[in-house]
Amino acid sequence: MLSLHNAFIDAQPASQLAQRFQAVRAQTERLIEPLSAEDCQLQSMPDASPAKWHLAHVTWFFETFVLERFEPGFKPFDAGFRVLFNSYYNGVGDKYPRPRRGLISRPSLPEVLDYRRQVNARVLDVIARTDEADRMQLAQLITLGLQHEQQHQELLLTDIQHALSFNPQCPAYAGRWPLASTAPQPVRWHAYGGGLVQHGFDAGLDGDFAFDNETPRHPAYVAPFELASRLLTNGEMLGFIADGGYRRPELWLSMGWDWVQAGQHELPLYWQGEAENYRHFTLQGLQDVDPNTPACHLSYFEADALARWAGARLPTEFEWELAARLLPASGARPGNFVETGAFHPLPQQQASVDAPAQLLGDAWEWTQSNYNPYPGYRPWEGLVGEYNGKFMCNQFVLRGGSCATPQGHVRASYRNFFPPDAQWQFSGVRLARDIQG
Amino acid sequence: MLSLHNAFIDAQPASQLAQRFQAVRAQTERLIEPLSAEDCQLQSMPDASPAKWHLAHVTWFFETFVLERFEPGFKPFDAGFRVLFNSYYNGVGDKYPRPRRGLISRPSLPEVLDYRRQVNARVLDVIARTDEADRMQLAQLITLGLQHEQQHQELLLTDIQHALSFNPQCPAYAGRWPLASTAPQPVRWHAYGGGLVQHGFDAGLDGDFAFDNETPRHPAYVAPFELASRLLTNGEMLGFIADGGYRRPELWLSMGWDWVQAGQHELPLYWQGEAENYRHFTLQGLQDVDPNTPACHLSYFEADALARWAGARLPTEFEWELAARLLPASGARPGNFVETGAFHPLPQQQASVDAPAQLLGDAWEWTQSNYNPYPGYRPWEGLVGEYNGKFMCNQFVLRGGSCATPQGHVRASYRNFFPPDAQWQFSGVRLARDIQG
Amino acid sequence: MLSLHNAFIDAQPASQLAQRFQAVRAQTERLIEPLSAEDCQLQSMPDASPAKWHLAHVTWFFETFVLERFEPGFKPFDAGFRVLFNSYYNGVGDKYPRPRRGLISRPSLPEVLDYRRQVNARVLDVIARTDEADRMQLAQLITLGLQHEQQHQELLLTDIQHALSFNPQCPAYAGRWPLASTAPQPVRWHAYGGGLVQHGFDAGLDGDFAFDNETPRHPAYVAPFELASRLLTNGEMLGFIADGGYRRPELWLSMGWDWVQAGQHELPLYWQGEAENYRHFTLQGLQDVDPNTPACHLSYFEADALARWAGARLPTEFEWELAARLLPASGARPGNFVETGAFHPLPQQQASVDAPAQLLGDAWEWTQSNYNPYPGYRPWEGLVGEYNGKFMCNQFVLRGGSCATPQGHVRASYRNFFPPDAQWQFSGVRLARDIQG
Amino acid sequence: MLSLHNAFIDAQPASQLAQRFQAVRAQTERLIEPLSAEDCQLQSMPDASPAKWHLAHVTWFFETFVLERFEPGFKPFDAGFRVLFNSYYNGVGDKYPRPRRGLISRPSLPEVLDYRRQVNARVLDVIARTDEADRMQLAQLITLGLQHEQQHQELLLTDIQHALSFNPQCPAYAGRWPLASTAPQPVRWHAYGGGLVQHGFDAGLDGDFAFDNETPRHPAYVAPFELASRLLTNGEMLGFIADGGYRRPELWLSMGWDWVQAGQHELPLYWQGEAENYRHFTLQGLQDVDPNTPACHLSYFEADALARWAGARLPTEFEWELAARLLPASGARPGNFVETGAFHPLPQQQASVDAPAQLLGDAWEWTQSNYNPYPGYRPWEGLVGEYNGKFMCNQFVLRGGSCATPQGHVRASYRNFFPPDAQWQFSGVRLARDIQG
Repeated sequence: MLSLHNAFIDAQPASQLAQRFQAVRAQTERLIEPLSAEDCQLQSMPDASPAKWHLAHVTWFFETFVLERFEPGFKPFDAGFRVLFNSYYNGVGDKYPRPRRGLISRPSLPEVLDYRRQVNARVLDVIARTDEADRMQLAQLITLGLQHEQQHQELLLTDIQHALSFNPQCPAYAGRWPLASTAPQPVRWHAYGGGLVQHGFDAGLDGDFAFDNETPRHPAYVAPFELASRLLTNGEMLGFIADGGYRRPELWLSMGWDWVQAGQHELPLYWQGEAENYRHFTLQGLQDVDPNTPACHLSYFEADALARWAGARLPTEFEWELAARLLPASGARPGNFVETGAFHPLPQQQASVDAPAQLLGDAWEWTQSNYNPYPGYRPWEGLVGEYNGKFMCNQFVLRGGSCATPQGHVRASYRNFFPPDAQWQFSGVRLARDIQG
Repeated sequence: MLSLHNAFIDAQPASQLAQRFQAVRAQTERLIEPLSAEDCQLQSMPDASPAKWHLAHVTWFFETFVLERFEPGFKPFDAGFRVLFNSYYNGVGDKYPRPRRGLISRPSLPEVLDYRRQVNARVLDVIARTDEADRMQLAQLITLGLQHEQQHQELLLTDIQHALSFNPQCPAYAGRWPLASTAPQPVRWHAYGGGLVQHGFDAGLDGDFAFDNETPRHPAYVAPFELASRLLTNGEMLGFIADGGYRRPELWLSMGWDWVQAGQHELPLYWQGEAENYRHFTLQGLQDVDPNTPACHLSYFEADALARWAGARLPTEFEWELAARLLPASGARPGNFVETGAFHPLPQQQASVDAPAQLLGDAWEWTQSNYNPYPGYRPWEGLVGEYNGKFMCNQFVLRGGSCATPQGHVRASYRNFFPPDAQWQFSGVRLARDIQG
Repeated sequence: MLSLHNAFIDAQPASQLAQRFQAVRAQTERLIEPLSAEDCQLQSMPDASPAKWHLAHVTWFFETFVLERFEPGFKPFDAGFRVLFNSYYNGVGDKYPRPRRGLISRPSLPEVLDYRRQVNARVLDVIARTDEADRMQLAQLITLGLQHEQQHQELLLTDIQHALSFNPQCPAYAGRWPLASTAPQPVRWHAYGGGLVQHGFDAGLDGDFAFDNETPRHPAYVAPFELASRLLTNGEMLGFIADGGYRRPELWLSMGWDWVQAGQHELPLYWQGEAENYRHFTLQGLQDVDPNTPACHLSYFEADALARWAGARLPTEFEWELAARLLPASGARPGNFVETGAFHPLPQQQASVDAPAQLLGDAWEWTQSNYNPYPGYRPWEGLVGEYNGKFMCNQFVLRGGSCATPQGHVRASYRNFFPPDAQWQFSGVRLARDIQG
Repeated sequence: MLSLHNAFIDAQPASQLAQRFQAVRAQTERLIEPLSAEDCQLQSMPDASPAKWHLAHVTWFFETFVLERFEPGFKPFDAGFRVLFNSYYNGVGDKYPRPRRGLISRPSLPEVLDYRRQVNARVLDVIARTDEADRMQLAQLITLGLQHEQQHQELLLTDIQHALSFNPQCPAYAGRWPLASTAPQPVRWHAYGGGLVQHGFDAGLDGDFAFDNETPRHPAYVAPFELASRLLTNGEMLGFIADGGYRRPELWLSMGWDWVQAGQHELPLYWQGEAENYRHFTLQGLQDVDPNTPACHLSYFEADALARWAGARLPTEFEWELAARLLPASGARPGNFVETGAFHPLPQQQASVDAPAQLLGDAWEWTQSNYNPYPGYRPWEGLVGEYNGKFMCNQFVLRGGSCATPQGHVRASYRNFFPPDAQWQFSGVRLARDIQG
């Protein structure tokens, strides 16, 4: 039996669940409106998937984990889809090889949209008919499916940007550029006292859902530190480049330097042109590089080198989470998550005065924390146990969401993760530094 | 100035040229009728191209080599297409990287079809208006463009078969299977006397067009030999497999054996299943292997191993051409191409009695001849000089056309060529053997 | 100016320093006694180096970091060696490519031994002549050089084992097998209370030297846990294999399962043969697999899978260090490293009764801790700053030393590190598990 | 039973055979005199082998093909050598993987030299004792073994040059540079009439031994042609480079251009430095590039591009052989190899006046002929049948021997062969061109 025991989810009224289901599902289809069937077919690298595959895979998730369990007399929409749209669940059976997803022209986009429609109707039917006894289980699995679909909404955007970038005619996905320019201002530093702090998902603070990798809530010691008031910008990246940043091994991790040399990296992903005249490919097509917009599409290697060049370092995920918890808007109180008596007061407590900007929803912020299990971590039981845990190796945690993350999807305890060479996400840099005792 | 001086082409009446132009162009579009825009987007390996790319590239050929030269006030349909749909002409300028052709979702299929329509109209206009002085040049280039398009018609079929083969649902391209089964009969041997024989394109024998690689006509000595009465069949391939053919190094060229091991080849391309029950993927979908149909989709390595296993060898391209010339139906007479006095009569001349079957239009026949320039070979002048000559390295000649070759495209002097590991063409085997003196 | 400010090193009398220098240097030469010049030339993979290169590189370290600084009128032994025997110090200049170290036949082994002799004499001379003012600096750098040489002593052994393993005649390096078999006994569990614990190098506990990566000493929270009484053995590995361990994806990290499939791993490194009759290649030649000897030469992936199969997990490096500190023999007291008032007492304190065996010197123990900088970490200043810090990415910490680690080299705070696919070290597994609150 | 039926070898007196055996075997050992055991261990790429391996492999050849057959009560020197020193004879059994030959430190060089001594003594004993009935067979196999050893003598030199080239200290193998500079003189052209010409080994012309690939002698038609009076020189290569030869795709075969780009080739192998100051690594160490010395270490791609740049082409192997046969010194008469009545006289016959220089023994001359079987070719029977035939794919024929070829080893019918990207042989270019009829 499936049990998402680590996450706290209230049973919801059926009508509310149905409404959320419809809203998220509709949003996915809205994302492909600017795309043709041919666009939706593109796969530009093994790590990215065609938009059509995303549309089908998230539907497969509901079919496999919800309908198969809760629909009386379940029959699959198409028996072949079980293999074709399985991503990585060995427990479910065979999978179509990931690097070949772009070779699946059939089912066509219209057929996949039909698949979505039929599964939607059947899930709504299941929601309406499931009795009290199974309601909690059902709500948990549907909620998981919707969170999963939201993750794929973001991937759909990053993957289509990557795919379109190979077209020399630089087609635009949309008319507006998702990352906002801000008024130029120097980085300021926000100081935080450290101590033995509680980390991880807390239903009271973070809402009604979390992935298993955000649990269990647990104490970890954080030393006093400072966090930058904003993300690093393209302007600072221009300074790094002008200063020979891509040619100076002393700024890079050894593995990062190998990466620079093997890939002949001289500019961030999507950048082209010459100094004074750089342009970059965005979802809005080819654009001038704006110095006041957060730098993004950076690998961990680039983020780490940029931080070293700036005389600082990347934050740990616990430092980031501590700062995010202390946002005035979040209503959080230190008492909720700091062990009594263990908090180190700062000489001048600045954290409560104002808070760093851009913590949520601009660009994912690389942390220096490896994507590891929290102490006492247990993967979900059942087939969905493969969701997160098996990826805890050679990846780094990113925090805070990006301009491509769906509204309401991210929270202070949310842990995204990518290998250190991944560039195609909306990933940026916020600096941190130690407070010398 | 362009000059296809090696090939013999009469100036034709404009109306006849226009008619041929329209017929070939229409045939290409007929080939994609069973395909969706998504199907036409697929590229399954660097050596294969999307159907949409084929449609556009052959049009680019007319735009670049005909319109640009003959149309007054020429303006390109889209300046970006010059790079996007250039295959390999360094003289024309930059080329979009071949392995990424499948990443071009825009222009869309409808846009490419519109490109075709507009270029068609403009070429027809040029045909109607070009005066006598340029007529020959124009006819030559249009004829070349049409021959070129016919080559891509065949590639379009082999490439789409390859692409669809990655779909686990084994979609069929068409309802009929292109290679015909024949009544079972053992291989018989046709004997040919040798001598100093003329090879290569002869306008009197071969019609009004040849590629430069078929010229110049030249003498080469052929020793007496025998040629098999038919192509090898799937039945014989089954025998090879059952006899451990894919596991016995002594049957293979050294490089072929490396290929078997590196690719873990145990069956021909597109075959699957177990002995007694093999099926293979065809343009008609997944089918039982019919033992009386010619074996095809064989690499040179497989063809060579199969011949060695059968106690014979592959023919040379000159042996094949000699036999094809002696076909009763061709009306050829030895006097036309054998040096006087140099022909070695056979004790019992069998060649005139009947002729080998399946010489033309079933499966391309691998020869043991490397794709080399004929003595005195000169590539065409001008930009089209890159058409053939620069590929004369590490490729083998195939002769005779296949079930996917357009009607009327192939001739006795026609030289197709592929590297020895290429499997995805309709390539088969006809045996030859020496006549011991 | 060089400054190893993070490590605590007393100025030593010159005579004592000279004596230690001579002892360590002599030990390295003792290690190659069983080897021919040809053996010392072998490089079997980019990650491993020829024995001759080790001999020369550790000497280059003294020449570059000691003689160049302290020897009046310094002239290099051979100017080309600066490049040839630089491992990874970009600050020192060019480096000969690592994967090609096996292609350096000249200097010969006798020439390298002569290089050692001359540098030894010059270093001893420097030790004798350096005055008080520089004595501390000199002692620090020589101590670092000797610690460095000891690290290479272990690598020399693991690298030569790897190289000799490619010889089908399975030559033995030495007559004795370094890992000891022990009396069979089941794994028992030692329980530890957690709390906010001090980690990292402490001069009072750990002696007079540490690498920069062991510093600064800092608090980290450890939850109550249990640690296995001994390392896992070949007997347990046999159980894992017999239970289909190498064929069950659910036991592996996703990246580990990719590694199993890509490398077609079915047995641990150096194992061969069939069930009931496995043998493995050791420094002693080909040997039967003894079920009572610790399993070693395991990758992190294998260690992690083995732990999951056993229903447990790998320890963190902090759990391991806590247990190592509590060894009765070490004389450590909790008071030295546990924050006052923060220690969680266990219901039944077992840790003081007896201690886990094999914590030091049998096989390196994979931890689930990534090789990350400790909070507040600063690399050494100067050229030796490249020693450790730049490798802190995609590596895991191993603790405790192995049978190939030089006597006295390892300590409770010592952090070894390798990527998760590395197998050729003497790396094994000790299980840990949570204590459920 | 072994039978080298294609080659003509007289039974020789035992004493003469023994004398030749000793001379060739001793010469191999003379070649390694400048080398240390470590030098003899080097393998710098899969295509090259360690000198020690060459020493052992040629001995294995005698042990396997001579002793095993002719020595009563044969016992192998070391049973493991059968696998270790087998190059590519599947019929003999397993082979040690070629790319790992450099990992075999044991047997040591002294042990391999001892292996040579013992096998030498046993072969001499067999020669002395074999009776009349087997004498012919024995002489054939020993002769083959000696020819084989001479081939490896040349490879030993090219392989050690390649290996030493990776040493930044550029060690010299020997004190003299093997390719001679000549007085500067422009290329002149020697004209040859064509016709139906006999090619291949002729005992009367070529002596008492040939490899199977030189047989059978057979007619082939050659059109009138001209051949350059000498090899192209470094001076002409300098012109090619200065003229942008490595940057102009129109000079290259398509596959050659891919090779240039993939390998970032800008200079010939072993060249370094800047224009006006090029140096190249030779067996004599690093030397200035002498413009009057034949260019060598060229790939087929480079040779073909150089010829195209010079407005000429590479000769066919039949053109080369025809010219080599007509050397005044060779005493050949057209009557011996030109079909009666088929020779095309030239208006002004120049061939008899003087002959091209450097045809034998300076640098191997790339021909445009693929390494194909001659019509009627049969590999030798028995195990040595793997000697040549299975390599007839994707290789080009080189003719004439080089400065590294042993004295007396090469002849007019001799066919060497390498893939078109091979550079490390002493391979150069002689131009040819058509005579327009």
